[in-house]
Amino acid sequence: MSKAAERTEVFSILAVNEAGVTARLGSLYSRRGYNIDSFTASPTNDPHLTRITLVITGDDRKFNQIFTQTAKQEFVKSVSIMDRDSIYRELLLLKVKAGKKERSEIREIVDIFRGKIIDLSKKSMIIEVTGSSRKLDGFMDMMSGYELVDVCRTGVTGIKRGDKGIDEE
Amino acid sequence: MSKAAERTEVFSILAVNEAGVTARLGSLYSRRGYNIDSFTASPTNDPHLTRITLVITGDDRKFNQIFTQTAKQEFVKSVSIMDRDSIYRELLLLKVKAGKKERSEIREIVDIFRGKIIDLSKKSMIIEVTGSSRKLDGFMDMMSGYELVDVCRTGVTGIKRGDKGIDEE
Repeated sequence: MSKAAERTEVFSILAVNEAGVTARLGSLYSRRGYNIDSFTASPTNDPHLTRITLVITGDDRKFNQIFTQTAKQEFVKSVSIMDRDSIYRELLLLKVKAGKKERSEIREIVDIFRGKIIDLSKKSMIIEVTGSSRKLDGFMDMMSGYELVDVCRTGVTGIKRGDKGIDEE
Repeated sequence: MSKAAERTEVFSILAVNEAGVTARLGSLYSRRGYNIDSFTASPTNDPHLTRITLVITGDDRKFNQIFTQTAKQEFVKSVSIMDRDSIYRELLLLKVKAGKKERSEIREIVDIFRGKIIDLSKKSMIIEVTGSSRKLDGFMDMMSGYELVDVCRTGVTGIKRGDKGIDEE
């Protein structure tokens, strides 16, 4: 019998913004042995609420468990699994060694990916690119021939497309 | 006697990329009662390593404790407190109600903040803006007069400027 097919889902959680909430969720997933591909937590426009976005690889059983365990926490206001059609974005900062010789080549790649060069020195540049995780992976693939000094990614955040989420009339 | 002055620092952690590392760090900060302003975790270019970026408000005593506790974990490769001069970036997605009337006004604000309109429907638009947390706060302030449907921020990631981090010659 084959193993249940694994896929990736994005969980969006709204929680009360109080000390230790991020940590308590981390601790919950840790005790249960769940691995999280990407985890972002940041205040929302409402100072009382924090939004946490998780990217998790697993099967239905795992997703159900995580959903149930998360929704059960008294500090969690809502949990949802985001649909495929939502818009996902991630930000990447890359520092790459680049002298005069490499500069224009790299600039061309950055332009194609609609990135920005946000710092330049004689021996290096720092590039910012935003997009889906797949786009950022594609960018990193194009840059893999250069000497990469440092890479930071924020992890994924997502929002529902179109008029979904706006009250129907 | 006045309370020790609080300030905000950004911690950059490189950890082994294995199941539960994010969660174990979360659990550590939870047990100690540390509150984390922003938390991002995402793979690096090296598949064996995950980078975690924390934004924490506190005083020297708290920063020292967090530094020591974090560095002690066997799965942590390095911890550093980033300098003021580093480049910090965060990504924000905002969905706002906007009909024909509001569209051009909002577009002007988005242009000034060098944001992008990434989805448009008859009743709403989705905007992407990247920058420092301060810039994003400024953008949100300008948008506060509109009917905001949803806001997501990734939290902060940061990278050292200039040739710092590149081997000296």
